[in-house]
Amino acid sequence: MERKKLRGIVPPMVTPLKDGDTLDGDGLEKLLERMIAGGVHGMFLLGSTGEAPSLSYRLRREVIETSCRIIRGRLPVLVGISDTAFDESLALAQVAADAGADAVVVAPPFYFPIQGQELIRYYRKLAKALPLPMILYHMPDLTKVKFDLDVVRFAVDMPEILALKDSSGDLDFFWRACHITQPREDFSVLVGPEHLLAPAMRLGGDGGVNGGANLFPELFVQMYHAVLAGDISRIDILQTKIDQLGEIYHVARGGMGVCRGIKYALQCLGICREMPAEPFGVLDEEERREIERIITHIKNNE
Amino acid sequence: MERKKLRGIVPPMVTPLKDGDTLDGDGLEKLLERMIAGGVHGMFLLGSTGEAPSLSYRLRREVIETSCRIIRGRLPVLVGISDTAFDESLALAQVAADAGADAVVVAPPFYFPIQGQELIRYYRKLAKALPLPMILYHMPDLTKVKFDLDVVRFAVDMPEILALKDSSGDLDFFWRACHITQPREDFSVLVGPEHLLAPAMRLGGDGGVNGGANLFPELFVQMYHAVLAGDISRIDILQTKIDQLGEIYHVARGGMGVCRGIKYALQCLGICREMPAEPFGVLDEEERREIERIITHIKNNE
Amino acid sequence: MERKKLRGIVPPMVTPLKDGDTLDGDGLEKLLERMIAGGVHGMFLLGSTGEAPSLSYRLRREVIETSCRIIRGRLPVLVGISDTAFDESLALAQVAADAGADAVVVAPPFYFPIQGQELIRYYRKLAKALPLPMILYHMPDLTKVKFDLDVVRFAVDMPEILALKDSSGDLDFFWRACHITQPREDFSVLVGPEHLLAPAMRLGGDGGVNGGANLFPELFVQMYHAVLAGDISRIDILQTKIDQLGEIYHVARGGMGVCRGIKYALQCLGICREMPAEPFGVLDEEERREIERIITHIKNNE
Amino acid sequence: MERKKLRGIVPPMVTPLKDGDTLDGDGLEKLLERMIAGGVHGMFLLGSTGEAPSLSYRLRREVIETSCRIIRGRLPVLVGISDTAFDESLALAQVAADAGADAVVVAPPFYFPIQGQELIRYYRKLAKALPLPMILYHMPDLTKVKFDLDVVRFAVDMPEILALKDSSGDLDFFWRACHITQPREDFSVLVGPEHLLAPAMRLGGDGGVNGGANLFPELFVQMYHAVLAGDISRIDILQTKIDQLGEIYHVARGGMGVCRGIKYALQCLGICREMPAEPFGVLDEEERREIERIITHIKNNE
Repeated sequence: MERKKLRGIVPPMVTPLKDGDTLDGDGLEKLLERMIAGGVHGMFLLGSTGEAPSLSYRLRREVIETSCRIIRGRLPVLVGISDTAFDESLALAQVAADAGADAVVVAPPFYFPIQGQELIRYYRKLAKALPLPMILYHMPDLTKVKFDLDVVRFAVDMPEILALKDSSGDLDFFWRACHITQPREDFSVLVGPEHLLAPAMRLGGDGGVNGGANLFPELFVQMYHAVLAGDISRIDILQTKIDQLGEIYHVARGGMGVCRGIKYALQCLGICREMPAEPFGVLDEEERREIERIITHIKNNE
Repeated sequence: MERKKLRGIVPPMVTPLKDGDTLDGDGLEKLLERMIAGGVHGMFLLGSTGEAPSLSYRLRREVIETSCRIIRGRLPVLVGISDTAFDESLALAQVAADAGADAVVVAPPFYFPIQGQELIRYYRKLAKALPLPMILYHMPDLTKVKFDLDVVRFAVDMPEILALKDSSGDLDFFWRACHITQPREDFSVLVGPEHLLAPAMRLGGDGGVNGGANLFPELFVQMYHAVLAGDISRIDILQTKIDQLGEIYHVARGGMGVCRGIKYALQCLGICREMPAEPFGVLDEEERREIERIITHIKNNE
Repeated sequence: MERKKLRGIVPPMVTPLKDGDTLDGDGLEKLLERMIAGGVHGMFLLGSTGEAPSLSYRLRREVIETSCRIIRGRLPVLVGISDTAFDESLALAQVAADAGADAVVVAPPFYFPIQGQELIRYYRKLAKALPLPMILYHMPDLTKVKFDLDVVRFAVDMPEILALKDSSGDLDFFWRACHITQPREDFSVLVGPEHLLAPAMRLGGDGGVNGGANLFPELFVQMYHAVLAGDISRIDILQTKIDQLGEIYHVARGGMGVCRGIKYALQCLGICREMPAEPFGVLDEEERREIERIITHIKNNE
Repeated sequence: MERKKLRGIVPPMVTPLKDGDTLDGDGLEKLLERMIAGGVHGMFLLGSTGEAPSLSYRLRREVIETSCRIIRGRLPVLVGISDTAFDESLALAQVAADAGADAVVVAPPFYFPIQGQELIRYYRKLAKALPLPMILYHMPDLTKVKFDLDVVRFAVDMPEILALKDSSGDLDFFWRACHITQPREDFSVLVGPEHLLAPAMRLGGDGGVNGGANLFPELFVQMYHAVLAGDISRIDILQTKIDQLGEIYHVARGGMGVCRGIKYALQCLGICREMPAEPFGVLDEEERREIERIITHIKNNE
């Protein structure tokens, strides 16, 4: 990435699979081309929505290489390398650098909770060792690690760190982070939960890393521009659509509703297969019908 | 393991390191011999106390192979293969089987929380695919997955599953689990938190997987026999010692206090190095002095 | 109470109402006589199950006076005086003393959470000011205050405090509390959640304050004696019945399921009216049918 | 209140006390006059900051009557009547109406958590029975009741309800509530936590009910106007001051730090006594010095 500030909609790409350990290459290409055509501003591979921790390392490497080949530099590519083992994160980062990615995204190691100065020590050591710029990923629900503002202050002082992706859903934290990072002109603060895209931007955010953009990229790109333009009535209409879309995330029983919901909806739209990675299985008939209902409802309202 | 019921004290071995990715082989040997001499009833490699998720896969394989070579079948060996990726768990299980281990221990995948029938589906699929018998590992603080009793009922029906290690600290759950598994004579229920060894056994438990047994294996073996004998006054004395030992787990700031506390105490005792795996660093001077104080206090009281 | 140690089953009496502010005196008498005939060892008025905080002060005074008149000293009577306002607690305690009650039961003030030495200061000041002995009531789910063991140590040193009622459901705490209070021969530790009566007694408890004893007092008295006798197979049978009864506590939607479940079941049994105090309303038809089903099932199994 | 929309800064008044059950009338008058002179837009008696649940009913009545007499209609007066007992809330509301107050403020009953339709049923019944308009008070930390958006939708349909005071600290909820209530021109949404006054107003809020306005009313009135004017650099300066002030809330050990911090700071400023109501005691020497330090620092920066 030539260090221009990252702005806009950067979808966390789902990982299309044929089975638990086989990439659905055709699906991947269709998915990427559709999002690029939809006007998104970057692409984030191997995040939570991409089920990265559930994929074997071999498969993660394949996702990075294949996606970068398809994207061909048309967009900045961010690659998730979060891992419980330091050396495995480093190895993935090297794969990303070799494939031509622009930055890596790192949540704290997610088995043992880490806090305070230990977390900062870890991030500093990793940032110094990485072959690419780093983006902090705040995801307390899955990592059990809630950032305090000292982490944000640390990031501002590290030129190796160029953005914060905040998936905490805590707008108080988000607003503080925007305030603290304001002096660094090249630093971005992006919001994860898509229903918060509009209020997060009103509080100073630069865009969103929103899973729903796998399905309806234009919807999020339009919201991004509506907030920039301060078009209140358009924001209202788009917010209602985003909220409707959000219903599909609560359909799957048993866990990982966001990813399983999006994947089945993508299959309904003819883009890629629904197959999730272990430990999760495909949706049952009732869950599928409910997602079909929601998708039909959204499409009829377009 | 010839399917005799697992009983007694099965220490979750810490992993002695020279640096983040290098095994301290001499320390490992001293540590294992000391625990075996202390009368423990089995050995658990690559659990949470063993920092398994923080180790590279290469290093995890080395730990399994080296430890099994040192142990030479003198004790049942259990190997942790918990992982967020199904195929990586399978690969580790094969290493364990090839090295002569007796069983594998599996916590739920720990990034995306998994619940209900999805969790049971995962455990069933894994148990069927494994080359060794399986032990369930209940560790909600670190995996975010709290077992319900249906998981225990499922385990009773699976001959491939031979034990439950419960580190939840929830004695209500523990007692229910003992009750549900009672009909399976070869099934064990072992308690994780060492300060609960005595009450858990009074409620029907078969023993403990207690980190402190890395340091003072006799203490836990003595408690095991004291509870079997119903020797109340001896239980009291031992409980006080176990509680004193537990103080070292709260010294380290920043996370993973149990493992970092034990490792530094082991270094004080001349057994192995204190080096933790990333993302954690060594203790600071103040933390070290506090652990030295506790260890000296315990040794003076012996 | 002549300070003999409190032991056995002490039901937390529900408060039979005609409407939100009118006592159902006939129901109250039937209920009390049935529990006394069932062999319970004491009576606890105006606890959580008695909806005390939802009743006007006038009504609380009426409950104390009427119940003491009906009981006529046949059993020790404990009266809940927990309140957010110190002076209102004192005033209720005086009513209890004047009516001939034996002790008062006090949870921490439940609006502002209070901790550490402030909690102990409060309990000490109250104990010194009360006209009756005091029982500590540990109910973190409703008061947001989790006792630490220092509260138990403090209680042991106060002759004004004669028991701990632990409704935390945390058997680790319960077992520690039994251990700490053991030197005080006249001090009791009683367990709240009825499904834990058996394991809590195995860990050293003296009995239970169990809501289900409003409905089936003999069941809990039998369990108390079965645990004392160490009759494992009988404990098993009784535990199954207690667990079935516990299903009625999860039927009511909207809150306070324990009390609303018991009250409707008492109406089914012809003992008193179901009317709860505000802020809760009567059960809906579906909820009622479900409770009828459970009660019928339990009675058929007797 | 002539139903004009409530806007601006409405301080939740602390209750100056001579001892646990005696009002500090002189302190009360000084406090009220100082806030009125500071330009606040309304006054809220007997909220959490006012320690209402800790005061005897006699004292609560005295607070209402004395304060209304001092205020003499110069500002809208809101009176907290939250209580666990329905009839006690009604009785307090009548006192407020008789004293000339404008509205009452009601958090859910705070002992038994209440949810969903039961909560709405309660609020509807109370609103219909009250002699004054009602304001909903969302305070999940203390009541254990988190509003869902259906509560807000219900409020919009009830002309008896004229505002929501949201002390949840959840800006996502706040923003949604602003959106839902927008069609009701006379409906206000006010934010509790004072460090969120600026972002909450940017998301559509009408003002704040901020405890710090007891101490420095102008600071909050200035922030209110700065946000209305969109004066970013002034917002920045004021936010820093509000954050410094917020430090005094974390000084008191043992609980209720906000109120105890403000009260001691008010004593430092010569306005009223520090005495808190039971169950809390006065600050210790170390806590006092820390609060003095913070107050001096703020005053020096003015």
